Amino acid sequence: MEVFPEKGSYHRSNLKGILDSFRPDFEKIERVLNRHFASHIPFINEISQYILFAGGKRLRPLLTVCAARLLGRDDEDVFNLSAVPEYLHAASLLHDDVVDGGVMRRGRSPAYKIWGNKATVLVGDFLYAKALNLASRFDDIRIAKAIADTVALMSEGEILQLLQVETPSFDEKTYLEIINKKTASLISVSCKIGALFAGAGKSEVQALSDYGLYLGQAFQMIDDILDYTADTSELGKAIGTDLAEGKITLPLVVAIEKASSREKVMLSKLLRGGNISEKKLVWVKDLLVDTGGLDYTHRRAKALIDMACKGLEIFAPVETKDLLHDLAWFVLERRK
Amino acid sequence: MEVFPEKGSYHRSNLKGILDSFRPDFEKIERVLNRHFASHIPFINEISQYILFAGGKRLRPLLTVCAARLLGRDDEDVFNLSAVPEYLHAASLLHDDVVDGGVMRRGRSPAYKIWGNKATVLVGDFLYAKALNLASRFDDIRIAKAIADTVALMSEGEILQLLQVETPSFDEKTYLEIINKKTASLISVSCKIGALFAGAGKSEVQALSDYGLYLGQAFQMIDDILDYTADTSELGKAIGTDLAEGKITLPLVVAIEKASSREKVMLSKLLRGGNISEKKLVWVKDLLVDTGGLDYTHRRAKALIDMACKGLEIFAPVETKDLLHDLAWFVLERRK
Repeated sequence: MEVFPEKGSYHRSNLKGILDSFRPDFEKIERVLNRHFASHIPFINEISQYILFAGGKRLRPLLTVCAARLLGRDDEDVFNLSAVPEYLHAASLLHDDVVDGGVMRRGRSPAYKIWGNKATVLVGDFLYAKALNLASRFDDIRIAKAIADTVALMSEGEILQLLQVETPSFDEKTYLEIINKKTASLISVSCKIGALFAGAGKSEVQALSDYGLYLGQAFQMIDDILDYTADTSELGKAIGTDLAEGKITLPLVVAIEKASSREKVMLSKLLRGGNISEKKLVWVKDLLVDTGGLDYTHRRAKALIDMACKGLEIFAPVETKDLLHDLAWFVLERRK
Repeated sequence: MEVFPEKGSYHRSNLKGILDSFRPDFEKIERVLNRHFASHIPFINEISQYILFAGGKRLRPLLTVCAARLLGRDDEDVFNLSAVPEYLHAASLLHDDVVDGGVMRRGRSPAYKIWGNKATVLVGDFLYAKALNLASRFDDIRIAKAIADTVALMSEGEILQLLQVETPSFDEKTYLEIINKKTASLISVSCKIGALFAGAGKSEVQALSDYGLYLGQAFQMIDDILDYTADTSELGKAIGTDLAEGKITLPLVVAIEKASSREKVMLSKLLRGGNISEKKLVWVKDLLVDTGGLDYTHRRAKALIDMACKGLEIFAPVETKDLLHDLAWFVLERRK
């Protein structure tokens, strides 16, 4: 079965080509990321660097830059601003890395294993604070407020996800609330602050926030598909971790709805359960294919990407608009 | 030996009298604290409430209110603003509660024991975000920036303290850097935002920030004395916890400087060591008395309180100024 059947209207020769077109921007983004996080305490810089420069996609800063550029602003300060969402992202990764006892962790050695829970939390706080400090340097209280609101939403999303492990609920509505808060809110605000900073009008700010929101939802859905289907070496982390951590994602929501009662019992058992064997993981993947869980999730993501792009219609057909379309397509078609 | 010999010029009939004079303010502060932290997720509110309404002194919001009042502003919005530093304080307590393995914790059942590390961290993030959201509602970017800067300083202070456990340094300079960052920065900014909000001029903002900084330093020094000398039932937590957690505070810095080499070896061993017996704790307390460590620390705190009050001389002799003097005296003479 082909999990990614349609490439739709955004088909391009390759995904790498899209990223290549942003190369000069990525280089500038790396420079500003290096510029604003420093503490005079080397230990803090060590942990910050570990999480900030671990091969992130830089999707969030790129969106800030593109949103501002779409509205005609493209200067050094836009790049400075673009570090804000990436610092939030890094801080949230550190806090996500904190563990309760024996919970399994993913891929690369997580920060808490090297520096302990306490230092990991505190450096996360430091990065949140740096993001908020940076956000308040542009003399626009709306930017500072948007960022503070996003941190609240992200923590709510993570907490809802945590509560899922204790009291699972298998409906799409809960899933959507979680991904909206934990992922899409930050991707949306990445666009929003770019628009605000460029002096956009209300409807333009809204259109770009919505673009980011839909893109963010789709981004998380693709992430949730890849957690079951990706090539481990390409993804850079183990697959099946959502299941092992008790995370109920959309492919699973659909599968549980369609599964037989015997299969449901089996799935619930696996969700409660720690280590999952290769054989059991293959069984779950087959179920996600047979029940249409993966297909449905990909169709939903595709529809969101369409909505994201449609919302950009209010803008003039400049090159940056095409690039935002490309970026949306990239989010949908990425393999890692 | 009398650890608190001088009451200086701020002597009043009793400490309770000072707090009584602020009773109407405390009631309003409780109301605003209840108003701004809510999430629609009951679990978040439960943890937030646990940490916010656990009998805190409300020193920080009171300082915001008094600073604004000293400059002639005394309305509902000042009280709303005063919740900001208390939320930061609560968030930092939650993050302080996160543990690495088997570290001992103090007094009342800490949040992580009830809800786990992960939820404790995330609700701390939520409270930080609520504080920053609230701080950005007053249309003054300087307030938002001051709060973000304070969060960075507080996390730096906590990290420096954490590093002390691994690589102890027994000098007063390091001690002062830690308490400035982890404690005094927040108490200082509590005054500063009140002053900014009341439209104070530069020198007034500076005077009130300095008052808070000195008060905060003294506050922490008294805390560090009480950790060895307090009546456990009055303090509401066990004494000797700093020692058990490897925290090097000013009384100990002095004691180590004056101690014999045999005593130094013994102290270093206790600092590395987990559980400390009643007998050993009495030995340490005696050493802190005999070397003058407690006396010295109290004299330093007294000098800081004098400096805090001296800085207020630029203000007209209104009632609030007297109350700020009283409050400083209270910080010095408190027994818990």
